[in-house]
Amino acid sequence: MCWSEPAVPGLDKKAMEAARRRLDCLTKPRGSLGFMEEIAVRLAGISGDPLPRIRDRVVIVMAADHGVARQGVSLYPQEVTAQMVLNFLRGGAAINVLARHVGARIRVVDMGVARDVGQDMVERRKVGYGTGSIVEGPAMSREQALACLEAGMAVAGDEADRGADLLAMGEMGIGNTTASSAVLAALSGAPAEEVVGAGTGVSGERWRLKVEAVNKALCVNRPDPQDPLDVLAKLGGFEIGGLAGCAIGAAVRRRAVVIDGFISSVAALLASRLVPAVNDYMFASHTGTEPGHGVALSLLGARPFLLLDMRLGEGTGAALGMFVIEGAARLLREMATFEEAGVAGSLEDERG
Amino acid sequence: MCWSEPAVPGLDKKAMEAARRRLDCLTKPRGSLGFMEEIAVRLAGISGDPLPRIRDRVVIVMAADHGVARQGVSLYPQEVTAQMVLNFLRGGAAINVLARHVGARIRVVDMGVARDVGQDMVERRKVGYGTGSIVEGPAMSREQALACLEAGMAVAGDEADRGADLLAMGEMGIGNTTASSAVLAALSGAPAEEVVGAGTGVSGERWRLKVEAVNKALCVNRPDPQDPLDVLAKLGGFEIGGLAGCAIGAAVRRRAVVIDGFISSVAALLASRLVPAVNDYMFASHTGTEPGHGVALSLLGARPFLLLDMRLGEGTGAALGMFVIEGAARLLREMATFEEAGVAGSLEDERG
Repeated sequence: MCWSEPAVPGLDKKAMEAARRRLDCLTKPRGSLGFMEEIAVRLAGISGDPLPRIRDRVVIVMAADHGVARQGVSLYPQEVTAQMVLNFLRGGAAINVLARHVGARIRVVDMGVARDVGQDMVERRKVGYGTGSIVEGPAMSREQALACLEAGMAVAGDEADRGADLLAMGEMGIGNTTASSAVLAALSGAPAEEVVGAGTGVSGERWRLKVEAVNKALCVNRPDPQDPLDVLAKLGGFEIGGLAGCAIGAAVRRRAVVIDGFISSVAALLASRLVPAVNDYMFASHTGTEPGHGVALSLLGARPFLLLDMRLGEGTGAALGMFVIEGAARLLREMATFEEAGVAGSLEDERG
Repeated sequence: MCWSEPAVPGLDKKAMEAARRRLDCLTKPRGSLGFMEEIAVRLAGISGDPLPRIRDRVVIVMAADHGVARQGVSLYPQEVTAQMVLNFLRGGAAINVLARHVGARIRVVDMGVARDVGQDMVERRKVGYGTGSIVEGPAMSREQALACLEAGMAVAGDEADRGADLLAMGEMGIGNTTASSAVLAALSGAPAEEVVGAGTGVSGERWRLKVEAVNKALCVNRPDPQDPLDVLAKLGGFEIGGLAGCAIGAAVRRRAVVIDGFISSVAALLASRLVPAVNDYMFASHTGTEPGHGVALSLLGARPFLLLDMRLGEGTGAALGMFVIEGAARLLREMATFEEAGVAGSLEDERG
């Protein structure tokens, strides 16, 4: 089974140029909105609209289980994945609160939780009932990895049909920081020690277990770093593949995607290795204490702008980031120009 | 004329303890919301409510002119201060857009613009028509400095009466990065070169002019670094004193205050030197390219969480920060506990 790279349109350079020109006419010193101006220009390029508008926001939360959880790499038992899916559906999790706060819908997708959960309330796109343990063999088959990508692309495509302009990538899965560390070690060549962090809060001996699990997974599976699909299949997770597909699907439909925490940034990196043009459609949001998070974002060349030491996932940092990104679009669209406001321009412009 | 230190209540330790206990019961790994948890706990201490709620937000934008603007330290002519006040009143400035975005009211206060502006629409608390040029003598008298503080305290008190829970400190005043650099150099002992930045966008020769203006102002005025009121009077500005008063007034009434950019952080530092207990009520929001901004925040021990390279002022970074701060309060109040959600706790807790 082979992967045919989907067509991702390039950014609209004309819309970006028009946005840039307008930013320089708005009532503020030139460039004084800093990175907000770059966000606004990129949103123009993504949407093709020189005055981009965020009308509908959605946080995609993909959940799945991981065979590696049996290695004692997490502080929480595997059943917490399913329990948290129910918590998402009932509105009690952190991401529910922050999605409400930013005015985003939540879409909870079961990509491969180890048991059936949530009945009619959850979107079921199960690729399996938990992955195989990566310390013993591959997480999934290459066919399953492709199925993850396709499911994610279908979700993003459906969201584009519903009118979503801004998607956030959230996840839940006990054991998924270990899987993400393994994927990142394979893609980056970094030693396990540099990409394994506290996850849910492990330290000392349990952190050592995570490092060993990552090393063993690399050794047992021998993934090909030039073949991101191979890396995903051997070391990844169903929700990680789903989110990578989601990013690709959003880019295909010219929608902006917000990266969340460590797992989400690894999914973004997989997406970018599979389809490099996807990079233009992704925004980082926050960075925190998980060391691999910074490694993945820097490989993506993505610039986080929130520093809150959050390490929860679920899309929580991305939800906060959505507010900033939408703010950038509104500044571009809603601010008055010097001329409209009757404000004098820069002395150096007048001379120049 | 002397300054009688107003009484600022201490944080409510019981409410903070209750907030901390609740955070540890919410459905997330302990501490995984990082700095958001610290914000939530402090909001509990400020309000005395273990489940703090932000019901009403306001951005205070104080405007004034500066005699030092005549030294060519800004890219913009002095009349831009008054023109921008009109822009604030008409809703076309960056802070109008971001205040709308975060659901905050804006209160525009003329603390000392060089001409009468805005008629009935602006709140007039003029302490003078622009300060004296600090390269020639004091910015204002000690009486005027006190009047600034009192005006700011009155504004904050009035906002507390209106029900505001969260205040942001914004400003406008051509020349005010030069005045703020002088105040910060006096309070910190740092050389002018380390606290003078681009302001509205100066570089090269004009930056050199700013550094020289600060050095000359320090030399001519010889402010007493142990006497913050003296520093404010000799080197500050009417809006800088007003914002310092605003922070003090908010603390007196147990309201949280959000620091914005460089000028706002210098006002916060003055407030904290005048009444150290005010520190507990202030939150940093962003940090950017203006070097003095980082110096002032670190003297305050305040931790910024937004990195957007913004250097506009007006309260723009603080407005974005308000969203994050309110999000912290909502997480504490609205998330489900492990028990409510039927989610298994940490394996180590069960053992412990």
